[in-house]
Amino acid sequence: MDKESLLQILSNVAAGKTSVEEAAKTLKNLSFEDINYAHIDHHRSLRKGFPEVIFGQEKTSDQIIGIMEKMLHQENIVLVTRIDQNQSGKVVSHFPEAVYHQDARMVILEKKKMPIQGKGTILVLSAGTSDIPIAKEAYLTAEAMGNRVESVFDVGVAGIHRLLDHQTMIDKASVLIVVAGMEGALPSVVAGMVSRPVIAVPTSVGYGVSLGGLTALFAMLNSCSSNVAVVNIDNGFGAGYVASVINRS
Amino acid sequence: MDKESLLQILSNVAAGKTSVEEAAKTLKNLSFEDINYAHIDHHRSLRKGFPEVIFGQEKTSDQIIGIMEKMLHQENIVLVTRIDQNQSGKVVSHFPEAVYHQDARMVILEKKKMPIQGKGTILVLSAGTSDIPIAKEAYLTAEAMGNRVESVFDVGVAGIHRLLDHQTMIDKASVLIVVAGMEGALPSVVAGMVSRPVIAVPTSVGYGVSLGGLTALFAMLNSCSSNVAVVNIDNGFGAGYVASVINRS
Amino acid sequence: MDKESLLQILSNVAAGKTSVEEAAKTLKNLSFEDINYAHIDHHRSLRKGFPEVIFGQEKTSDQIIGIMEKMLHQENIVLVTRIDQNQSGKVVSHFPEAVYHQDARMVILEKKKMPIQGKGTILVLSAGTSDIPIAKEAYLTAEAMGNRVESVFDVGVAGIHRLLDHQTMIDKASVLIVVAGMEGALPSVVAGMVSRPVIAVPTSVGYGVSLGGLTALFAMLNSCSSNVAVVNIDNGFGAGYVASVINRS
Amino acid sequence: MDKESLLQILSNVAAGKTSVEEAAKTLKNLSFEDINYAHIDHHRSLRKGFPEVIFGQEKTSDQIIGIMEKMLHQENIVLVTRIDQNQSGKVVSHFPEAVYHQDARMVILEKKKMPIQGKGTILVLSAGTSDIPIAKEAYLTAEAMGNRVESVFDVGVAGIHRLLDHQTMIDKASVLIVVAGMEGALPSVVAGMVSRPVIAVPTSVGYGVSLGGLTALFAMLNSCSSNVAVVNIDNGFGAGYVASVINRS
Amino acid sequence: MDKESLLQILSNVAAGKTSVEEAAKTLKNLSFEDINYAHIDHHRSLRKGFPEVIFGQEKTSDQIIGIMEKMLHQENIVLVTRIDQNQSGKVVSHFPEAVYHQDARMVILEKKKMPIQGKGTILVLSAGTSDIPIAKEAYLTAEAMGNRVESVFDVGVAGIHRLLDHQTMIDKASVLIVVAGMEGALPSVVAGMVSRPVIAVPTSVGYGVSLGGLTALFAMLNSCSSNVAVVNIDNGFGAGYVASVINRS
Amino acid sequence: MDKESLLQILSNVAAGKTSVEEAAKTLKNLSFEDINYAHIDHHRSLRKGFPEVIFGQEKTSDQIIGIMEKMLHQENIVLVTRIDQNQSGKVVSHFPEAVYHQDARMVILEKKKMPIQGKGTILVLSAGTSDIPIAKEAYLTAEAMGNRVESVFDVGVAGIHRLLDHQTMIDKASVLIVVAGMEGALPSVVAGMVSRPVIAVPTSVGYGVSLGGLTALFAMLNSCSSNVAVVNIDNGFGAGYVASVINRS
Amino acid sequence: MDKESLLQILSNVAAGKTSVEEAAKTLKNLSFEDINYAHIDHHRSLRKGFPEVIFGQEKTSDQIIGIMEKMLHQENIVLVTRIDQNQSGKVVSHFPEAVYHQDARMVILEKKKMPIQGKGTILVLSAGTSDIPIAKEAYLTAEAMGNRVESVFDVGVAGIHRLLDHQTMIDKASVLIVVAGMEGALPSVVAGMVSRPVIAVPTSVGYGVSLGGLTALFAMLNSCSSNVAVVNIDNGFGAGYVASVINRS
Amino acid sequence: MDKESLLQILSNVAAGKTSVEEAAKTLKNLSFEDINYAHIDHHRSLRKGFPEVIFGQEKTSDQIIGIMEKMLHQENIVLVTRIDQNQSGKVVSHFPEAVYHQDARMVILEKKKMPIQGKGTILVLSAGTSDIPIAKEAYLTAEAMGNRVESVFDVGVAGIHRLLDHQTMIDKASVLIVVAGMEGALPSVVAGMVSRPVIAVPTSVGYGVSLGGLTALFAMLNSCSSNVAVVNIDNGFGAGYVASVINRS
Repeated sequence: MDKESLLQILSNVAAGKTSVEEAAKTLKNLSFEDINYAHIDHHRSLRKGFPEVIFGQEKTSDQIIGIMEKMLHQENIVLVTRIDQNQSGKVVSHFPEAVYHQDARMVILEKKKMPIQGKGTILVLSAGTSDIPIAKEAYLTAEAMGNRVESVFDVGVAGIHRLLDHQTMIDKASVLIVVAGMEGALPSVVAGMVSRPVIAVPTSVGYGVSLGGLTALFAMLNSCSSNVAVVNIDNGFGAGYVASVINRS
Repeated sequence: MDKESLLQILSNVAAGKTSVEEAAKTLKNLSFEDINYAHIDHHRSLRKGFPEVIFGQEKTSDQIIGIMEKMLHQENIVLVTRIDQNQSGKVVSHFPEAVYHQDARMVILEKKKMPIQGKGTILVLSAGTSDIPIAKEAYLTAEAMGNRVESVFDVGVAGIHRLLDHQTMIDKASVLIVVAGMEGALPSVVAGMVSRPVIAVPTSVGYGVSLGGLTALFAMLNSCSSNVAVVNIDNGFGAGYVASVINRS
Repeated sequence: MDKESLLQILSNVAAGKTSVEEAAKTLKNLSFEDINYAHIDHHRSLRKGFPEVIFGQEKTSDQIIGIMEKMLHQENIVLVTRIDQNQSGKVVSHFPEAVYHQDARMVILEKKKMPIQGKGTILVLSAGTSDIPIAKEAYLTAEAMGNRVESVFDVGVAGIHRLLDHQTMIDKASVLIVVAGMEGALPSVVAGMVSRPVIAVPTSVGYGVSLGGLTALFAMLNSCSSNVAVVNIDNGFGAGYVASVINRS
Repeated sequence: MDKESLLQILSNVAAGKTSVEEAAKTLKNLSFEDINYAHIDHHRSLRKGFPEVIFGQEKTSDQIIGIMEKMLHQENIVLVTRIDQNQSGKVVSHFPEAVYHQDARMVILEKKKMPIQGKGTILVLSAGTSDIPIAKEAYLTAEAMGNRVESVFDVGVAGIHRLLDHQTMIDKASVLIVVAGMEGALPSVVAGMVSRPVIAVPTSVGYGVSLGGLTALFAMLNSCSSNVAVVNIDNGFGAGYVASVINRS
Repeated sequence: MDKESLLQILSNVAAGKTSVEEAAKTLKNLSFEDINYAHIDHHRSLRKGFPEVIFGQEKTSDQIIGIMEKMLHQENIVLVTRIDQNQSGKVVSHFPEAVYHQDARMVILEKKKMPIQGKGTILVLSAGTSDIPIAKEAYLTAEAMGNRVESVFDVGVAGIHRLLDHQTMIDKASVLIVVAGMEGALPSVVAGMVSRPVIAVPTSVGYGVSLGGLTALFAMLNSCSSNVAVVNIDNGFGAGYVASVINRS
Repeated sequence: MDKESLLQILSNVAAGKTSVEEAAKTLKNLSFEDINYAHIDHHRSLRKGFPEVIFGQEKTSDQIIGIMEKMLHQENIVLVTRIDQNQSGKVVSHFPEAVYHQDARMVILEKKKMPIQGKGTILVLSAGTSDIPIAKEAYLTAEAMGNRVESVFDVGVAGIHRLLDHQTMIDKASVLIVVAGMEGALPSVVAGMVSRPVIAVPTSVGYGVSLGGLTALFAMLNSCSSNVAVVNIDNGFGAGYVASVINRS
Repeated sequence: MDKESLLQILSNVAAGKTSVEEAAKTLKNLSFEDINYAHIDHHRSLRKGFPEVIFGQEKTSDQIIGIMEKMLHQENIVLVTRIDQNQSGKVVSHFPEAVYHQDARMVILEKKKMPIQGKGTILVLSAGTSDIPIAKEAYLTAEAMGNRVESVFDVGVAGIHRLLDHQTMIDKASVLIVVAGMEGALPSVVAGMVSRPVIAVPTSVGYGVSLGGLTALFAMLNSCSSNVAVVNIDNGFGAGYVASVINRS
Repeated sequence: MDKESLLQILSNVAAGKTSVEEAAKTLKNLSFEDINYAHIDHHRSLRKGFPEVIFGQEKTSDQIIGIMEKMLHQENIVLVTRIDQNQSGKVVSHFPEAVYHQDARMVILEKKKMPIQGKGTILVLSAGTSDIPIAKEAYLTAEAMGNRVESVFDVGVAGIHRLLDHQTMIDKASVLIVVAGMEGALPSVVAGMVSRPVIAVPTSVGYGVSLGGLTALFAMLNSCSSNVAVVNIDNGFGAGYVASVINRS
């Protein structure tokens, strides 16, 4: 439930349009709702400015649909992350407005478009073609949360001139999300070029001692640039989310 | 060299107050200066809004003094991090305006106070008494970079009511830095209470499988709250820096 | 063989209802029985108050059935853990009284219901929907061992108010089992609210640096609450077992 | 503040022996008290049945004394753990009733002896002579919390007959704490002999691949006996604490 | 080529039964033979007392057959380890004397039975039913190398009386192979009972922090019994081999 | 675009054979070309002497074909690494000159054969039959880059005489690539025999504590021979590449 | 107490030379003796052929002396391992027959020389000068246990000809102990040259990714020679012990 | 013994200037010399073009002096690495020509200057001031082995313009050594700029998850530039050595 919806209910009560009993019934689920296998946190939109997001991994299509139905009573937008093609089929059939983004493994359902709330532009950079799925997850999350978002993919450090070619776009961004696997060096280089916050996302792309992304993660945490903060390996969603809350300041 | 100083020099040239030769001499070190054991990056203030910071670990007092002297020609503020009491003695004797903050292991030298540039307030929370040094490093860095900063120390999750007691202060902060060792749970709990960005700092406090802070780091990266980004273990400086760039947006 | 059965045999001998030879034949397998691929520990019920439990992983259906048959001669209850749907089919067909619990991957066969032996109530809490299978394994184990058990699922730390809503149930429990993956913070928070023992169960739910549950495990071992003890990753059975022996005191 | 003290204050108010103002003054610190570098959790005795314990590591003698003084206004017993001989000197001089236990690195100050509250006996077993300090920490903690405690040291698995010799003592214990380093096998063997809960404590004794206790920790978590729960490496205090809360059931 | 075969060839030359040319042709491959994808080390039987063994993993059936054919010209026995059912089909069809042992994933081809060369008896003990495949690999290897071998399976430490029941067999063994997963405690206990060498084999059986056998491996290396030496995780073959060379002394 | 091609274009302009506009059109893609999912670095041939190589893992056949088409406008040779049989089918059908090398998982397309540019011979040695795929990848890469290459496979350290047999070939090589899994000892032994640089390639062949190649990697990095440098686990391509740039000196 | 001493006592009783009471007094400590901080296992000489050995690390000089005194009542030889120069001073002063071996950090006290019991010769090889202390510990242990022992130090694999020079000595050994740090390759090479059992000892010598000996340990466990078994990092004592029990067969 | 010295001796014999006996005496130590605690490998100069280097760590000053004396009979240059100030005092006093380089922790003794043998220039780049000691070790080793060497220190990736400023020097180098700690990104960036081989040296500089250099090492091994090979953490000597053998081609 977002702030606007709550004010509407209360105004209706004040104006006599809604009885106290009706309002109470609606509001009693305000805090959270127990549907046996999940406690849905309706209060989150008010507290955090964005509804709870469904982590699709290891949930059945039916569990996801059940949670979505309850959320849609009170929310304008629902995001499902880490949902694969198999799981998404039944979900998308069930909700005609829902869209499945295969490369980012997300379902997004918007009853009405989230208005732009971010002050500046969020720029998503990725190091290699193989990092694109995670970069897309970050892109879609930031966009769904009401931000202007731009992206440049495949600008790794082994050809530093490719990166420098996008200097203008980099300079004007208010928050940067930098996605990289293997040696994870791109965030350090980008962060050395700007004064704005950089959210670094390590990916599990690579082999040998990429160790499922640990090497990229550790390299980013050791960045000699100080305007870098890091999220979990492959956590494009988290990067989009945290960049979004920064951009709303 | 900060933006203001650069504009001053150029205005003086324009106004005929400074000869072209003199200005050239000053500006020729703009990019960086090589003093044999270090390349000082004078350009950084212009590019990033804050001068380079000296990483004190494994440098001699004389090296630190040498770098500080060069920087002070062009900067209003110099920070030295990870400098212990032994190293700091000679440094503080050499520069009367320099102050050594023992608990945070920092030397700060301000020719003039950095004006407030942050829009909101940065709040530093720490989980235990032993985490205070890192929390102080974050606090002083954010303050030196021109922010209003507040702090609450020793509010760990094992007594959750201590945390809830500070709800008002937590709600009004625009960026939160949360410092915790051991199980590293505090950032998740705090981030679940607010809609603002949370910068989590794992510390190396603990024993057994705290693994020098790795456990707290990994726990924070796995946070089920999405508005959390993480910096390196014990990197209070980095947290203060990144919170500061967020607060300037 | 439980204590009651042993006493019965001896009484029968004393009363002349059973010849010494017959009794000897029954009791000769008391210690353990060798069926080629397994030594069945019949003595365990007497020594430990509960029969040996069959660890299903990497055993064939036939091996499991063979062990169950030998055990049923002397025991009233048999538990099989870590048995997947494929393995369970033949087992459940063979023993009509056996029930397969899919979410907990357990087979339970009770000739007669174990009477309540625990003094208080065991409460199972879990942090996320994805942790439910492990929580269910703990629940069913504790129940099968003769305890009153209650559960609340999906009460993670990112919405601390969901947890506080169950304060009454939490307060009255005599032992608490807390199941959590990802950052593993829930046991610390719960343990800070009660004076009773908390058995923490890390799960392998998550991605990136959840490291197959190691992060949650290490976070729990570092708990700043002292009334926490931990079992292996995903070891719901072990948690139910140890909570049960505590509850019998 | 323990329950008895609280009831006393309230009775005094009821009986007119204490004015409402005086009582309010005393109770206003009930929840916790802020002494700048620490939030003391006076509420804990009521909530958890035992006052907060001071983690001495990396605190100065003066900080420890300061916290102890505040606590002694309201508590009958204060424990300081992980305090070395140097730190303890000043503390013990300051509080004549305080006793330093060198082998367990603890300071214990009892205004009056904690009455026996545990129902049964807690038995502390340790595998080697080098594990004794951790075993002693567990012993003293359990004793200070009002339990009957017994101990047998140096009964490792390489001479299994030494262990079997103490069968009677092992059988009659209501909770067992088993301390072991190196291969950490002792808890499995002991737990296979009893039906009571076993709290296993891995120690960092050893070299090579003992890996600072990780090997013993992991071995204990993998125990094929199910009545074992584990605490952090070298966490004798935690083992004593959790055994104590089990024994009070 | 074993010693006997070499002596035979030379005797034949001495007796005029074989021409020098023929003998030279046979012996020129003595050192090793290059069949493009493998250098077969025919010299090994002479140097080490047993022919090279084929490591089947990631080899095709055809490669294995090719190597076997070359070896059979000069050897009386060929062992293939880590060969799965699919690979083995074609191999066993090709060589009618070859036998596939499914539980041990081995193919053994004996032209004539290796005579008993070991002085005493090798005893293979395993901790759980799931460890049997590795134990079988050790058993078959030791047997193929000309030893008397006995085995007792499923005698883990959680029921120590099962182990003590086999004291006689344990006492009379000249070398013991002890196979265990999970906490890996069995070798320590067994080694404490005997004066003979114990070869410990960790297995990857388990879950959670069994870490694919690393925990058992490290526990065994930390054994407080000194007559223990260890081989790689799941290396039943290596254990059988080294036990065999010890038994030949 | 290689150097020769660039000179040709410029000569044509100088000779009036190509108009400035045409030349400009060709050269505007010189730096790199953006085909949405990839930035192709055409400048690399000039800068590094060899065109960018396509890392096939997790790319679709269509993406690979798209990148190859763009590259073939300007390059004489294209390499695709880590491409499995499924992916390669469509690629090889599309480009008749392309060849798929199954054992090395590479596609190589040469418009005209790269002339020999290396001064000496590169020798590829591998320790076991299972290491051959990685050794082949190194072999083919070095050959494609214009070197004379030789190889000896299956010469592990457990039969040191097999290695010594190839002394002549080893002595005359100008760079050596040594590929080994398991204990990774071969590079140390080879490097002790020669004065030339040795590029060591650890492979992920093995089980138990081979840890996916980490053990071989660490062993090689610890080599007591000083003329050894190491590349990533299973990185045959990188070894061939770096050996090639050494050989061109 | 060794076998001979036991037989003597019993013979004396049989011959009437010792009263039953006297014999009983002597024998009552046969099993073990509890001296508060240690259970001394006097039974071990009978059970295992060699008395318990004192692990000196983290024991005080007084504890060591106390244990030695009790042992000397019944044993002819006492070994103390991991005892540094400081600890040893008081011990050697107390027992005039005790000798401190500084390089091996051992104290050895022999009332009478252990007679030669080993059948063949044990050969100790070490890879580098820095591995000598561990090699010496193995040497002295094997010698004290009644074996003929020889040694060759500093024969690492980077100069393989140094090793081959000692072929004769290597060939005639009945058990080989091979000590190596860094890449740990020596045991594989040696084991490939002989048919006898090789006990490999990894050492913590090295830096960087030697990881305190883990690399050498893992390399040895992965040995492609099968007659290798391994003991813990730096465990020279264990290697000497296990080689000795092999040599007694 | 270098090649020149050997030829001299033989010429002298040929010319009758040296008797066969005298020459034999000199040459008998050619292969190696056993001075009890070390086998000195005099043959190495001939075989590898540079004498054995003394690894100073954990050797006494006297052992180092002993080895140096033997080597100086036959070599013109001796290097000692990893020798600290304490060890070096006695060594430098003993050999007046020896020089101690404190920052690189090396002793170098040159009887006569090694002539330039490398074809091009070796360039040593380092990322931070704290990496200088390792960079110096690489510099001095390469120089001692007869190369032209240049260096640029403190050019990390967080200020990429500092690096670009040295483009000319970078372009003309024939081999590059790149030293970096923390995130280890510099080698990737440099390698992307050149076609020459890059030897990457990770250092242990940093804190938190720098993990003693493992992060930098892994990042370098994952480099997306293919002309990078890596040596052990802090192994400046190895990098100088391998760069030198490349430069001699």
